[in-house]
Amino acid sequence: MAKKEYCGVFGIFDHDDAVDLTYLGLYSLQHRGEESCGIATFNGRKLRQLNGMGLVSEVFQKNKLKGLKGKNAIGHVRYSTTGSSIIKNAQPFAIKHNKVIVSIAHNGNLTNSVKLRRKLESAGAIFQTTMDSEVVLHLLVRSEKEDFEEKLAEALTQCEGAYTMLFLTDDKLVGVRDPYGVRPLCLGKKNGSYVLVSETCALDLIDAEFVREVEPGETVIISKNGIKSKYFFKKKPKSSCIFELIYFARPDSHIFDDCVLQVRKRLGRKLAEEHPADADIVMSIPDSGNYAALGYSEKIKIPFEFGMIRNHYIGRTFIQPSQEMRKHGVKIKLNPVKDVLKGKKVIVVEDSIVRGTTTLTRIKTIRDAGAKEIHMRISCPPIKFPCFYGIDFPSRKELIANQLSSTKKIADFIGVDSLKYISLEGMLEAANGNSGGFCTACFNGKYPTKVNKKAIKSPFEN
Amino acid sequence: MAKKEYCGVFGIFDHDDAVDLTYLGLYSLQHRGEESCGIATFNGRKLRQLNGMGLVSEVFQKNKLKGLKGKNAIGHVRYSTTGSSIIKNAQPFAIKHNKVIVSIAHNGNLTNSVKLRRKLESAGAIFQTTMDSEVVLHLLVRSEKEDFEEKLAEALTQCEGAYTMLFLTDDKLVGVRDPYGVRPLCLGKKNGSYVLVSETCALDLIDAEFVREVEPGETVIISKNGIKSKYFFKKKPKSSCIFELIYFARPDSHIFDDCVLQVRKRLGRKLAEEHPADADIVMSIPDSGNYAALGYSEKIKIPFEFGMIRNHYIGRTFIQPSQEMRKHGVKIKLNPVKDVLKGKKVIVVEDSIVRGTTTLTRIKTIRDAGAKEIHMRISCPPIKFPCFYGIDFPSRKELIANQLSSTKKIADFIGVDSLKYISLEGMLEAANGNSGGFCTACFNGKYPTKVNKKAIKSPFEN
Amino acid sequence: MAKKEYCGVFGIFDHDDAVDLTYLGLYSLQHRGEESCGIATFNGRKLRQLNGMGLVSEVFQKNKLKGLKGKNAIGHVRYSTTGSSIIKNAQPFAIKHNKVIVSIAHNGNLTNSVKLRRKLESAGAIFQTTMDSEVVLHLLVRSEKEDFEEKLAEALTQCEGAYTMLFLTDDKLVGVRDPYGVRPLCLGKKNGSYVLVSETCALDLIDAEFVREVEPGETVIISKNGIKSKYFFKKKPKSSCIFELIYFARPDSHIFDDCVLQVRKRLGRKLAEEHPADADIVMSIPDSGNYAALGYSEKIKIPFEFGMIRNHYIGRTFIQPSQEMRKHGVKIKLNPVKDVLKGKKVIVVEDSIVRGTTTLTRIKTIRDAGAKEIHMRISCPPIKFPCFYGIDFPSRKELIANQLSSTKKIADFIGVDSLKYISLEGMLEAANGNSGGFCTACFNGKYPTKVNKKAIKSPFEN
Amino acid sequence: MAKKEYCGVFGIFDHDDAVDLTYLGLYSLQHRGEESCGIATFNGRKLRQLNGMGLVSEVFQKNKLKGLKGKNAIGHVRYSTTGSSIIKNAQPFAIKHNKVIVSIAHNGNLTNSVKLRRKLESAGAIFQTTMDSEVVLHLLVRSEKEDFEEKLAEALTQCEGAYTMLFLTDDKLVGVRDPYGVRPLCLGKKNGSYVLVSETCALDLIDAEFVREVEPGETVIISKNGIKSKYFFKKKPKSSCIFELIYFARPDSHIFDDCVLQVRKRLGRKLAEEHPADADIVMSIPDSGNYAALGYSEKIKIPFEFGMIRNHYIGRTFIQPSQEMRKHGVKIKLNPVKDVLKGKKVIVVEDSIVRGTTTLTRIKTIRDAGAKEIHMRISCPPIKFPCFYGIDFPSRKELIANQLSSTKKIADFIGVDSLKYISLEGMLEAANGNSGGFCTACFNGKYPTKVNKKAIKSPFEN
Repeated sequence: MAKKEYCGVFGIFDHDDAVDLTYLGLYSLQHRGEESCGIATFNGRKLRQLNGMGLVSEVFQKNKLKGLKGKNAIGHVRYSTTGSSIIKNAQPFAIKHNKVIVSIAHNGNLTNSVKLRRKLESAGAIFQTTMDSEVVLHLLVRSEKEDFEEKLAEALTQCEGAYTMLFLTDDKLVGVRDPYGVRPLCLGKKNGSYVLVSETCALDLIDAEFVREVEPGETVIISKNGIKSKYFFKKKPKSSCIFELIYFARPDSHIFDDCVLQVRKRLGRKLAEEHPADADIVMSIPDSGNYAALGYSEKIKIPFEFGMIRNHYIGRTFIQPSQEMRKHGVKIKLNPVKDVLKGKKVIVVEDSIVRGTTTLTRIKTIRDAGAKEIHMRISCPPIKFPCFYGIDFPSRKELIANQLSSTKKIADFIGVDSLKYISLEGMLEAANGNSGGFCTACFNGKYPTKVNKKAIKSPFEN
Repeated sequence: MAKKEYCGVFGIFDHDDAVDLTYLGLYSLQHRGEESCGIATFNGRKLRQLNGMGLVSEVFQKNKLKGLKGKNAIGHVRYSTTGSSIIKNAQPFAIKHNKVIVSIAHNGNLTNSVKLRRKLESAGAIFQTTMDSEVVLHLLVRSEKEDFEEKLAEALTQCEGAYTMLFLTDDKLVGVRDPYGVRPLCLGKKNGSYVLVSETCALDLIDAEFVREVEPGETVIISKNGIKSKYFFKKKPKSSCIFELIYFARPDSHIFDDCVLQVRKRLGRKLAEEHPADADIVMSIPDSGNYAALGYSEKIKIPFEFGMIRNHYIGRTFIQPSQEMRKHGVKIKLNPVKDVLKGKKVIVVEDSIVRGTTTLTRIKTIRDAGAKEIHMRISCPPIKFPCFYGIDFPSRKELIANQLSSTKKIADFIGVDSLKYISLEGMLEAANGNSGGFCTACFNGKYPTKVNKKAIKSPFEN
Repeated sequence: MAKKEYCGVFGIFDHDDAVDLTYLGLYSLQHRGEESCGIATFNGRKLRQLNGMGLVSEVFQKNKLKGLKGKNAIGHVRYSTTGSSIIKNAQPFAIKHNKVIVSIAHNGNLTNSVKLRRKLESAGAIFQTTMDSEVVLHLLVRSEKEDFEEKLAEALTQCEGAYTMLFLTDDKLVGVRDPYGVRPLCLGKKNGSYVLVSETCALDLIDAEFVREVEPGETVIISKNGIKSKYFFKKKPKSSCIFELIYFARPDSHIFDDCVLQVRKRLGRKLAEEHPADADIVMSIPDSGNYAALGYSEKIKIPFEFGMIRNHYIGRTFIQPSQEMRKHGVKIKLNPVKDVLKGKKVIVVEDSIVRGTTTLTRIKTIRDAGAKEIHMRISCPPIKFPCFYGIDFPSRKELIANQLSSTKKIADFIGVDSLKYISLEGMLEAANGNSGGFCTACFNGKYPTKVNKKAIKSPFEN
Repeated sequence: MAKKEYCGVFGIFDHDDAVDLTYLGLYSLQHRGEESCGIATFNGRKLRQLNGMGLVSEVFQKNKLKGLKGKNAIGHVRYSTTGSSIIKNAQPFAIKHNKVIVSIAHNGNLTNSVKLRRKLESAGAIFQTTMDSEVVLHLLVRSEKEDFEEKLAEALTQCEGAYTMLFLTDDKLVGVRDPYGVRPLCLGKKNGSYVLVSETCALDLIDAEFVREVEPGETVIISKNGIKSKYFFKKKPKSSCIFELIYFARPDSHIFDDCVLQVRKRLGRKLAEEHPADADIVMSIPDSGNYAALGYSEKIKIPFEFGMIRNHYIGRTFIQPSQEMRKHGVKIKLNPVKDVLKGKKVIVVEDSIVRGTTTLTRIKTIRDAGAKEIHMRISCPPIKFPCFYGIDFPSRKELIANQLSSTKKIADFIGVDSLKYISLEGMLEAANGNSGGFCTACFNGKYPTKVNKKAIKSPFEN
């Protein structure tokens, strides 16, 4: 399977507080990538950059932030996938070539990067990372065109796949969204300066105004001369990732022309319509399932209850003291409330089931807390196909919906009295996508582009 | 005002995994104290102890935990109050005196500690800390009694105030709850071994069975010979801290013979009964206000909505990049959802207002997100008096309910269209406390014990 | 064997740069203790203190130094002995008792501390550390006298042993040297302010003038009223530790009325007189043996050569990568120079042999580098008795001079062609001590005071 | 001025303890570079690498060393020059290109690297660092030759300058010394495995046998098939850096067919011959001046004394507590011994004077300690020209020998009664270089190669 690059990006041009605002913006996009993060800034002709492994709050200690100067900046958060957790692959990624200095921040996946990389190496190129971003930059510097925009166009038209990219040069901030519009990219304005963000929650935090989404296939070029749009690519059918709405994006973001939280509530309502159940209470696996559960509860008129409490102190630093203690760890993050659950018939609404192992564990703790019946309802269809556009699903055979041949068997595996998924049509209807516009490949295998299943492995270990 | 010791305690006797279980238990009691924590263990005659500043997950790195050995252990988390954040004041606190080694973990406040300390110093005692716990130990070693239990009884009967204390010696785990029963202390059992915890959520996490609450004025002595109860004190009227139920304890805990989350829902229902409002939605300030808001919503039959989203990445490490940026920081923790709030009449349910400054800020962000009307409802009466039993309220004059002479003025200050508090009677009724049993001093100034208003300041700074 | 407290002290009164000068002073006294260090300062009535494990340069990071304020300060460096390397035992050690705040820094050993401690515990005292210093402070606060000086006199006259102590109160810096004068204490002056230091190298570094040594049995009391001397003790025969001159003190210090480096050169000359040898070159084990070797070379007129080179990068952080690699580690610190040693007859001058194991290893590397003959000469007599006054010799049976019955056997063990020690008389003559004045107990077992061989072990581990 | 790369290298092929031995080897070469260090290993086809800023002991913590596996390894230590202290420029530096993985460790300077780099960039190359090493690798991958050795030959013959390079591939360790032989490279053997090191002190530490020096212009290729030599370059006049012998190399190393310590003693003797003085004692500025001072003393028959004592605790962590304190800091590293110097006529022998500022400070402390007359003797001629081959002299105008027009003026500036330098001829004679063989460009400006004075500055800052 191709390498996943699930990430969030932030860019701002010509603002006195560019660095601080980028820091805040990345903070609000942290859910899009916890592995590494970085900020690059231009101060005149000088690029400054700080990348690091870890959360935004860990990498950008106060004095380090002060070392970054400039009115133009881009930032990046990156997702953790096993094996490639190395600092070299942190972004933004910058090069200097002759007089050109450019830094790139990238969310998504090139589906033809292996082929491009081989061709470039045969022509003498040396790659320092395994990132798709570096391929784009090699194409860029090898373009014979004079102008940066033309070089960029020449490079990008050779790339296939799903991506949102930001480029920062000494005099420009450029944002590109692939022609299918798989990943989101939003344009905002803060005190007259343009801002580009993966999700609008980053605009909210810095009190920036939401202008519009960047169009699929659009390149926006922001400079001292203002903003202009270019369309370098042939038009393609819009195929926004519906999983952003179901699970990945923050509930308070507004992307793909909709409010994420409200889409989730509508998914819950639709789910209740399609698959009601007789029960005393409706609950969620917090916090991601909260919104669909509330929608479900409203529709079916069974009260929503907080049946599980989330521990706010849980972080990545928790130590499982020993093998024997591991079983207790399960309840560190989410503790079921016995007084609420005891003797009750419970509907548990969850946004998705991937491997099924976490769900199994959660259901067991609910059962142990005294629930009499458990009816599980899922606000997306069964996930059966890998994603080549940036979502890190496990391999096909690890997906529970492929492992087991029926929903009944899955229900038995995870230990619920009944299990129902929303239908593909129901989901699209709730997402206002009846007329298409969404990529649903993970549910039905219909990929909008050609896909390449060969992986690139890093030859270096650190 | 007297020094606050707001804390959580955990103790376990004769269990092979005593250290690991104490670590987990403290993790689940983290909300009772984020400043410092510690674990003391006995392995035969040898006491091992590790205290540190910071969260449980920060202090107990893996190999450090391994250094602690023993089948008996006590642990402690401590609350942060300005000025005394020093490692010396971290607990458990241990002494060796002649042949006796004893470690203490303490939650609460002695109201006569200044007097006791002066008397002891005049008799040659040297104090190393400003903790009440040390006073108890000096009294203990100066007792002429032969037996540890008798020494303890002699020491404790000289102490006044509100406290829960655990003592660990080489052959005993002792738990004491003051005669008023101000702070909670619960007894559990794990694989046949006794456990003492501040709240039952610590029992849940380690899969221990809840046996019962330790009675006000009861001393439980756990040893190889099993458990026995002693009552050293004269009987006093039960006065459990109602603020534990309103705000402080974890919602999934069961203390003072009730489920915390369900008390909060009942407070919300009662609040709706007493102070309904006309609105489109009911929301909370997450997460502490969630339960009262849900109860309010159910009673008044106006839908509960997630109008604010909590950022899970917020920790103590967030850097305000600069003064100018501070205003943005407000929304880092809680972001209002514009699509939910725009043009709506909103009821905001909150558990309490202390200084009013945080509430003011939250209300402003809700207003800025487009709410048309905001009606605030508070699930406890106005807080007007300091707590001498462990809750760190600010000084009287900083309490908004003292600063401003009417609820109307407070409503204007925080910027809401209406503001209502639950009544004292309503609160007690919801908490099933009609017949008394609760300390309500912070609301009405009726303290169950004599109180001493002189502070002890540390002469040392680190 | 009694607990060792081998340390260095520094104190300064009424100087604007008191903290910075104490920091520098401790830096120059680092050789007297590498385990822990600390500084205590008084700023009006407020004591500030910072102690830590590690070297002065590690503990006092820049901003930490800034947190210490005041014109009066004492500092301490402490020696590492197995088992007691805990932060609690770092000094200075301070107490507040009623209105009195006092901090103590201590070098030496009380020989009756176990007895005193037991007596105090029976009277209700609680000890927090295993340090002798704490005993002194308990005696002090229990004195019925009115005045600090009288309390101090009453406390100190109950103590036996060898010690140099500094006391800092809000209005006084007090220095005490035991009546035997075992450990050094020097008085200096910096810009009119008095300074007390273990060795004069600390005066050199801060450009302070050397005034005089504090006399055995003298107490100097420095206050706003200037300096005064008190003699609380009965006069005793002067018994300064000759091992300070032989090995322990810095070569550039001037203590016990002599220049350390020049004493060592005279010891080398005397050694050459007593035990000449036929050889091509004279060399030392650097750096401690350099001075005796140079004196030896001058007297015997055989050239001094640098036969071993010391690696300046060696620190406490060196990792022995594996058991197999350990043998190579030997040469990391000191590498013999093959081109200098090959085929040569070599006289190796060393200041002392304790266990013999390190010497054995060094001699082997010299032999492997090609030396044809090795004649070892030692500038002190065989060490056969433990020190109860602060030097951390191993137990009697580990001393090579006790293990093996003749110098010949020791020579064979360490692998040299001949081995000779300076005589006790020769050593005393070279140290200008013919008429007595030195403690030579480690060589001949004649202790100037009663000694107590029982150890105090800490009941706590961290 | 060109960028300096002053470094040390270590390589070993086919040894079970390759990683540990490389770690030890780098430890002994630490004086050649304190800024950063790294180790690269091959384990089959997999390259593992760990680079870091700081000393060897800081970067290679125990568990980190364990992560490196393999029987073939190269290591590198790098010198600190202002502005380029970034982790990206740490070595070894590795690339993967098609099937080839190669890591390089480099000591020295390419004098035509700017030109080569420009040419490569125009052909589409992207550089990640400012290191000359990366230029070599770009040339290598662009070679059309089939075989690694031929590619290497084609790359290296395009390079000009002074360098020692090690290359590690999956089946080879290659060492190259430039045709002038400016920097040293020695071949050793450890348990039958070949070792390549900058200086023999690295062989001593790991108990390896010294085989021979690699010849100027020689390439040694070590593989499973043994060792073979290639000569890719036209023969050039040998021009070994005499400053390695004077100051830079470790005194216990044997390079350029001589013992460094003994060359320094001969320089001291020659200096005494050329420039005797009337005095009471001869002393050095320790430790680098020790050997020339001892040679001088022996020749002139005036006793060598330790007039200054070096503090072993001085590290890079020393904090100057404040501007006012800075003057005291001078004596932290080296303290003059008053008792030795007072009233004496002193000859101070030093290896070199560069800026003169440090010397000035040292002389002042000697004078303040009481020296009556100070006669300074320098064991190299005045340094007047920059080094383009790796030694980091300051710019021409900062060199004191250029700033002041006569030796008399320099003597006055640094505050000595007389100042004399060894003559160029005397130096060469003492170094056995009468017949040439040394680069003396820093003294007389005669560079063996063409030199390029343009600097490469990094466009990136971290």
